[in-house]
Amino acid sequence: MTDTDRTLDLACELIARASVTPEDAGCQALMMQRLEALGFHCTPLPFEDTQNFWAQWGTSGPLLAFAGHTDVVPPGPASEWDSDPFVPTVRDGLLYGRGAADMKGSLAAMIVACEDFLAKRKPQGSIGFLITSDEEGPATNGTVRVMQWLAERGINIDYCVVGEPSSSEALGDTIKNGRRGSLNAELKIHGRQGHVAYPQHADNPLHGALPALGELITRQWDQGNEYFPATSFQITNLHTGTGATNVIPGHVDLLLNFRFSTEQTSNSLQEAVEKTLADHSVKADIQWKLSGDPFITAEGELTNACRAAVLEVTGIETQLSTSGGTSDGRFIAPYGAQLVELGPINASIHRVNEHVRVDDLPKLAAMYEGILRRLLPEN
Amino acid sequence: MTDTDRTLDLACELIARASVTPEDAGCQALMMQRLEALGFHCTPLPFEDTQNFWAQWGTSGPLLAFAGHTDVVPPGPASEWDSDPFVPTVRDGLLYGRGAADMKGSLAAMIVACEDFLAKRKPQGSIGFLITSDEEGPATNGTVRVMQWLAERGINIDYCVVGEPSSSEALGDTIKNGRRGSLNAELKIHGRQGHVAYPQHADNPLHGALPALGELITRQWDQGNEYFPATSFQITNLHTGTGATNVIPGHVDLLLNFRFSTEQTSNSLQEAVEKTLADHSVKADIQWKLSGDPFITAEGELTNACRAAVLEVTGIETQLSTSGGTSDGRFIAPYGAQLVELGPINASIHRVNEHVRVDDLPKLAAMYEGILRRLLPEN
Repeated sequence: MTDTDRTLDLACELIARASVTPEDAGCQALMMQRLEALGFHCTPLPFEDTQNFWAQWGTSGPLLAFAGHTDVVPPGPASEWDSDPFVPTVRDGLLYGRGAADMKGSLAAMIVACEDFLAKRKPQGSIGFLITSDEEGPATNGTVRVMQWLAERGINIDYCVVGEPSSSEALGDTIKNGRRGSLNAELKIHGRQGHVAYPQHADNPLHGALPALGELITRQWDQGNEYFPATSFQITNLHTGTGATNVIPGHVDLLLNFRFSTEQTSNSLQEAVEKTLADHSVKADIQWKLSGDPFITAEGELTNACRAAVLEVTGIETQLSTSGGTSDGRFIAPYGAQLVELGPINASIHRVNEHVRVDDLPKLAAMYEGILRRLLPEN
Repeated sequence: MTDTDRTLDLACELIARASVTPEDAGCQALMMQRLEALGFHCTPLPFEDTQNFWAQWGTSGPLLAFAGHTDVVPPGPASEWDSDPFVPTVRDGLLYGRGAADMKGSLAAMIVACEDFLAKRKPQGSIGFLITSDEEGPATNGTVRVMQWLAERGINIDYCVVGEPSSSEALGDTIKNGRRGSLNAELKIHGRQGHVAYPQHADNPLHGALPALGELITRQWDQGNEYFPATSFQITNLHTGTGATNVIPGHVDLLLNFRFSTEQTSNSLQEAVEKTLADHSVKADIQWKLSGDPFITAEGELTNACRAAVLEVTGIETQLSTSGGTSDGRFIAPYGAQLVELGPINASIHRVNEHVRVDDLPKLAAMYEGILRRLLPEN
């Protein structure tokens, strides 16, 4: 069993560094210091306003990388917190602080896992750390750029464990082995403005668009498959009208989002939306933005190692899931790595009084160590 | 025939007084000066920020009132005008200036008509002027208040000619003998906010409302009747979402407007909307605001006098109409007056380079005089 205090202590040291995205606030320097002491070779990789680093132990054999981010979402009004969001505070067995669950607890557990693992063993293979500070922001100068940097150097990750808080009710009960795709669109639907008293001289773009929108929200896009729930469609924003009660608006601005399974592609969805609009003679300018294609890690070495490690530490039979939001895993998986997300309970993330169970921190470190032990055996 | 220069000159004097609603800028003082010279008794009736007056010639017999407003809508950027909006300018037979058509040309014609009429005749009956300065604004401290003031004094208008620019292609081609009702509603439709990746935990209020809104926009509310076109329904404003692409919105804010015929009442429309929302389980807070009930002046003495006066001056067979927007007539007609709107061509109103035809000004004065002559015969 890993020493409780070391994982908790490191988590506290990271939380005390107020790294609101894209700030890193010294978290990465602290991590690199610990990793260098283990023999990792650390390379800071700043891109624009984003701090990143790649750390690597060993150069041969399979490469298992831990991936994560030091940035956190803003705490909101500190007055709504029961304690300062950047003063790590233990109460009733819970460690409170912004980033406690997402994902400084995981970062601490990854490092302690490596310390424990390398103290006892001389494994075959290599260990990497891919750490960024803009996962909670635009995610353009972080993992994407580091993956390009690795590819240019011929470094291929075989197994990747992302520290995202994947657990639902109990630590380890859920592992994400894939994520749905996410596709956004920004539409400007055109009509003709006019006085509300003369509708015959105007063309209300909202009235014109309603039948098409009605079709889009009621359509069953697919049934999902063994790995993915059905594709879902949401209109997230719609704005029309200038506030005047006597003017028929001239255009509608609309944002929509798909979370999609591997039964779809971003192209199939774009074509379906554009066809539906055309079928109803809706004139629209559309800007599509693909946030990430869906990806999946089939059952195999990595999921088996995770299952066994979770069972060993907690006695829980873990569940594989592809639900929930996106993570930086979407930028790593396309390069061919087996990839999972395994981390603390996610109920409090992005909220006031974010917390992680104190007891879960050494357990998470033990799980990560168990994965290392299974995938990087000794000579 | 009325003297051309007097109507044009008075219109110019009024346009030069920059009376952007609710300002009067001295227009009413000028009008009262001219009316007092004819023997009218003038009573300024300021209410809050609004200048109004009532003027009356005679105390017995039928009362014919001219009604209108000295305020104008804002000119917008003066640079978009070909000449200063408050410097009356004649070019190519057109008088340009804010208020030229809506409705300072009419006000000038009303006064010149009375001057000409009373110079030649000693009529039975009385003549009134009901003038306000907030028709283009909230319309709360103008005609509404003056009508209450008249009612308290037992003064009942028999015939009312409102100077609104009713004409379409040629002066006098259209007389408005009624107006549709106008009913506004402000809705807040409630759902449950949530992350777009977990639609099962949220309730998108726009998705929930679309079927009901689709029903409302496609419904044939009525067929209209001999006086009114069919009732029309417009969603004038709809806003939902905070700009985030990953959040299902928690509520929708919506403004809607009915222009309705006498086949409906505001109650029948309110009940129909509320039933449609309830049928689709849409939870909404609704604030209704009735801008005006529909009103109609049936064919009779006033419309006959107008038809004959238009025919006499222009040779045109006028058309009766109830289309278009609201006017202060909605506040006068409910007291029982026969009421019409008769004024210049309305194509340029509320726009840059608002104008009236110079030749139409004395013709309009002659029409108003013709109406006086027919309804207030000599002893």
